[in-house]
Amino acid sequence: MIANPPPWPNGARCAVAFSFDVDADSVVHAAHRAGALDLPQALAHMRYDPFVGTPRLADLFARAGVPLTAFVPGWVVETYPAAVESLLNAGAEIGHHGHFHEWPSRQTVDEERATLQRGSEVIERFCGAKPRGYRAPYYGLSRATFDLLIEQGFTYDSSLFADDIPIRLDNGRGSLVELPVPASVDDYNQYVSARAFDYLMKISAPSQALAVFREEFDAFWEFGGLFVPVWHPAVSGRPAQALAIRALIEHMQAKGGVWFATLEQVADHVRTLEANGLWIPRKERIPFYFEPIID
Amino acid sequence: MIANPPPWPNGARCAVAFSFDVDADSVVHAAHRAGALDLPQALAHMRYDPFVGTPRLADLFARAGVPLTAFVPGWVVETYPAAVESLLNAGAEIGHHGHFHEWPSRQTVDEERATLQRGSEVIERFCGAKPRGYRAPYYGLSRATFDLLIEQGFTYDSSLFADDIPIRLDNGRGSLVELPVPASVDDYNQYVSARAFDYLMKISAPSQALAVFREEFDAFWEFGGLFVPVWHPAVSGRPAQALAIRALIEHMQAKGGVWFATLEQVADHVRTLEANGLWIPRKERIPFYFEPIID
Amino acid sequence: MIANPPPWPNGARCAVAFSFDVDADSVVHAAHRAGALDLPQALAHMRYDPFVGTPRLADLFARAGVPLTAFVPGWVVETYPAAVESLLNAGAEIGHHGHFHEWPSRQTVDEERATLQRGSEVIERFCGAKPRGYRAPYYGLSRATFDLLIEQGFTYDSSLFADDIPIRLDNGRGSLVELPVPASVDDYNQYVSARAFDYLMKISAPSQALAVFREEFDAFWEFGGLFVPVWHPAVSGRPAQALAIRALIEHMQAKGGVWFATLEQVADHVRTLEANGLWIPRKERIPFYFEPIID
Amino acid sequence: MIANPPPWPNGARCAVAFSFDVDADSVVHAAHRAGALDLPQALAHMRYDPFVGTPRLADLFARAGVPLTAFVPGWVVETYPAAVESLLNAGAEIGHHGHFHEWPSRQTVDEERATLQRGSEVIERFCGAKPRGYRAPYYGLSRATFDLLIEQGFTYDSSLFADDIPIRLDNGRGSLVELPVPASVDDYNQYVSARAFDYLMKISAPSQALAVFREEFDAFWEFGGLFVPVWHPAVSGRPAQALAIRALIEHMQAKGGVWFATLEQVADHVRTLEANGLWIPRKERIPFYFEPIID
Repeated sequence: MIANPPPWPNGARCAVAFSFDVDADSVVHAAHRAGALDLPQALAHMRYDPFVGTPRLADLFARAGVPLTAFVPGWVVETYPAAVESLLNAGAEIGHHGHFHEWPSRQTVDEERATLQRGSEVIERFCGAKPRGYRAPYYGLSRATFDLLIEQGFTYDSSLFADDIPIRLDNGRGSLVELPVPASVDDYNQYVSARAFDYLMKISAPSQALAVFREEFDAFWEFGGLFVPVWHPAVSGRPAQALAIRALIEHMQAKGGVWFATLEQVADHVRTLEANGLWIPRKERIPFYFEPIID
Repeated sequence: MIANPPPWPNGARCAVAFSFDVDADSVVHAAHRAGALDLPQALAHMRYDPFVGTPRLADLFARAGVPLTAFVPGWVVETYPAAVESLLNAGAEIGHHGHFHEWPSRQTVDEERATLQRGSEVIERFCGAKPRGYRAPYYGLSRATFDLLIEQGFTYDSSLFADDIPIRLDNGRGSLVELPVPASVDDYNQYVSARAFDYLMKISAPSQALAVFREEFDAFWEFGGLFVPVWHPAVSGRPAQALAIRALIEHMQAKGGVWFATLEQVADHVRTLEANGLWIPRKERIPFYFEPIID
Repeated sequence: MIANPPPWPNGARCAVAFSFDVDADSVVHAAHRAGALDLPQALAHMRYDPFVGTPRLADLFARAGVPLTAFVPGWVVETYPAAVESLLNAGAEIGHHGHFHEWPSRQTVDEERATLQRGSEVIERFCGAKPRGYRAPYYGLSRATFDLLIEQGFTYDSSLFADDIPIRLDNGRGSLVELPVPASVDDYNQYVSARAFDYLMKISAPSQALAVFREEFDAFWEFGGLFVPVWHPAVSGRPAQALAIRALIEHMQAKGGVWFATLEQVADHVRTLEANGLWIPRKERIPFYFEPIID
Repeated sequence: MIANPPPWPNGARCAVAFSFDVDADSVVHAAHRAGALDLPQALAHMRYDPFVGTPRLADLFARAGVPLTAFVPGWVVETYPAAVESLLNAGAEIGHHGHFHEWPSRQTVDEERATLQRGSEVIERFCGAKPRGYRAPYYGLSRATFDLLIEQGFTYDSSLFADDIPIRLDNGRGSLVELPVPASVDDYNQYVSARAFDYLMKISAPSQALAVFREEFDAFWEFGGLFVPVWHPAVSGRPAQALAIRALIEHMQAKGGVWFATLEQVADHVRTLEANGLWIPRKERIPFYFEPIID
């Protein structure tokens, strides 16, 4: 069913790269600005992330021997260093996720460029290396984002529902590996219902959410894809939700043939395959359009 | 339970016509116009359709030996010819679905007439024959649509939740076969949650969505109806969702007594039954109303 | 768990009164007025009710030997007499449901009074007797509705989520029996997702919807309540949904001890119990408030 | 998985404090003010709470020998004394929940202070003691709420999704025990769909809702947390929903090792642990922010 699946290391059937967007309460400030001070309930809801959820998940993945990638806004790195420390101790990759979780498509190009630089500097200062990968806050890519990521030397992006395997995005002056995410694997959709986030959704039992995640994975496993769940510690780091993740990992490990990797490792693997002529990803020219199709 | 079911070929218990609306990213341009350039995430979400989902589904149906009908906007035919080629290779019927996926009820009559002509010309140029069937983009039929379809010689429409079997729509100057779709079989409702499409919905596990589709089919099978699921390759062409469709086809084939057909074949079957006096469909005069019921 | 359940006829454990709001496309006209002419898809969606759903359900209940109550707007009675005929042939009670499915709380008192009279006259002319019961369109009771119902001699209302057994509403000049409906039994909530109705909801498999209805019933059965489901033929009269209703009826019949009745029969039973001093319902003074609690 | 769980009395594995927000129709008046008089359906929907749901739940918990905490707006205490009496007879703790269910973050500090005093006075007058705990109506804490609660001598708050165990909130002049609630346990989300409450949500079967509650509890039980469900008698006091609660209690009792307590008892336990140096809760400085993070 997958047309041209890449060969995965050691003959694995598929690749799995768990990713978490460690937003903490940045999303409350970004959405409500000064009004966030009037939302202590929403702030506490999201501060669960650095104080409880992130350390718990870091520990859970370390115990399971499974790597993870954390996309962390710069402000969160500065404000909650202990949470990021717990991620680093678990061997997590730290990716770029804006500075204040800004919506890229609502920024000017200069603002977006400055945000990318600021977030990178904070991560480099704290973690010792610049981030190599990016996920757009709110998936809100602007028309300039990919050009800016190439300009600033990023290796990969992971923000698109574009394919089931890696693709390459090329703007004629350089390129990125795109590590796409499935359209259906989103913990907000399963577990979050809160007016402060303008998100009222039916809350699932963790066993029901696990069925969504597991059935998605099973299909990627069958066909050789790259499976990248996108979750949030304030949501999936809670007790019953964390147990569902643990059950999913156990399901994957019992099934076998899974290459667990960080997104950085996946991107490097793709580049090695390309360099050795072992596999060529589908290429998309970016931007997708230079002019409006309908005025 | 179905009052006057038509006789189906070879004594089949029911008819099944799988249909896909192959919108690609036309819906992003149609909804956001120039603003679509600021939505690369939504564009990539929908470009999954021609690059991944449509070829996969075309292959899946060809392997299963099951025909399908694809409603494709003219712009999508022009922009993604390889995807349409994969459909034609699988023997799919290509139906009309606007040119840019325009909302018919927001067009003037002249604009709507021009859109119908333009979409037809593109399909004729690419596929060698004019489309004989129509499905309204967004189900957004205008008060003029049926008159225009009759004027332009269409054989059938498939946009109404009007019945469980074919009916005939007559405007006094001509008529159409209406091949109705069930109200409950919609893959957006099961799988899509995206602000760019103004559609935030709980995402189901594929097994849960399959239960919706299968229980609907089982009832149509029991009572002799025409079952027309309406799906989208950007949504249902993804790995786990495509597996759910494969499971549904296997369920139907195991149950037996199903006439699998394109919508065009169903419409022709209805016309033959009528011509031979073997079955008369319920007739509705169109438009349903000439004057407002409540001012 | 139910504090003071009424004795039901023949020692039945509970009472069940199936009710359908036979709205047809009145809701499209009422919500969109002249704009309804631009919504042929929505009109056809709802015209399924008189042409397909209502006759099917009337037949299903007649075969099962189970009575039903249909609340029908006057305009629907006039426009779709054959559908109402099928209900009368099945022995259904016809209740009042507005004339054009108007929202009572958006009418002046005089308009609401006129609507009540007009709907009653149509039903009397068509069915031979004035309706004795009322359900507010949209559950949209005005502050005057109960006074008007008492003024016009209605026996009962069935629009409130007020209790699990009948209660009496008294305005000092007269009274009504209120036959309350559960808050959770609503087929739109399980099956309808349509922008034209400003109602986007996750669509359930009929087996999932049946679980909602059956678990509600089981509790009413256990505790001796009056169970009044509220459904719509355009929604629940479709094949798979009608099968779910049939399965629910079979579940009830297999369980036994159920008094199946029309709402009119329930109201008469209550009046007989009261008259004989066998059971006194809880009484609520109406209106609930004469002055605002918070200005 | 829980980093530093408190020791619970008698070696219990976890603590459970059932809580109900006994809003009655205060929410209709608070949201619609004078317009509430035009909403008799919504009023009756919520008056089910004092007339039916609250007495039923009080009885259910008393029979099960399980304590409960009820947060009751002052106006509800005054208006429905029999319902509060049933709670007191069942040994329930009565907590503060505003006077008219006002949204605290929409009040001035003086208004909020006056509301706190007024609600406390009503509870003291009716129940013989001031309330010691608070839950914000709508979870709508203002930036001043915690300061005001400390100023007025409250012992605890229970409005935050901040942790899985008690924490301490300190403003430098005093402190509160925070008894957090899980983010996912909300009966509106499972059972309520009503435009009058601006809340349209898919309605679950009680067995499905029970799975959400039970899986949450099971995780808290496994890791030693404090489990505080937040429910409403107008919603969860109905027959099938009350049976789901009874089933949950039976599940907990069968599992064993659960300390059932009122929230007041939990807060006192925390204070005793702290006083004896047996356990120190995580401390958060309040307010979380003095200045906007993003202007």
